Amino acid sequence: MKYDVTITIALKEGMLDPEARAIRHALANLGFETEALRTARLFRLTLDAPSAEDAAAEAEKMCERLLANPVIHHYTVEVAE
Amino acid sequence: MKYDVTITIALKEGMLDPEARAIRHALANLGFETEALRTARLFRLTLDAPSAEDAAAEAEKMCERLLANPVIHHYTVEVAE
Repeated sequence: MKYDVTITIALKEGMLDPEARAIRHALANLGFETEALRTARLFRLTLDAPSAEDAAAEAEKMCERLLANPVIHHYTVEVAE
Repeated sequence: MKYDVTITIALKEGMLDPEARAIRHALANLGFETEALRTARLFRLTLDAPSAEDAAAEAEKMCERLLANPVIHHYTVEVAE
C-alpha cells in the first residue's frame, strides 16, 4: 500500500544554527524583527509498505542511514494514511 | 503579543528538484525504494505582533522580500496562538 511520509530534520536544541543567524540578521536589515528563528529540512516522499508502521520504520531507517546526522540532528516522521 | 510562526517554502509543482533526485538516487543505492520525493525548507520563528493576522502578514512579507523566490517557490505560513 502507498503511504505519504513527511520527514522533518532539524538541529538539536543548543546546536549553533549559523544559517538561521544569518537569515535573522538579513531580516533585521530589511526591518523585520524576529525573536528567535530555527531552520529545518522537510522531505515529502511516497513509499510502498505493508502498513503505516512499516512505512514509518522504513522512513526512520532512511534518516539514520542517510538523511540525518544523529550527532547534530533530531528528526520526526509523520505517515499520512 | 508573541506568535510562533512556521514558514514552509517548497519548489512549485513541475519545477525540477535536482536535490530531491540526488537523494532518491542515494536512497535507492542503500536499498530504499521511494515513489516520489520532494524537499522543502522550514523556518520556525517567534515574532511580536498585535494579532495573529498581523503576524501572518509580516511572515508573508518576509517570504516575499527574502526567504522565497516567487518565480520558483510557493510558501505557506502557519501561526500558532
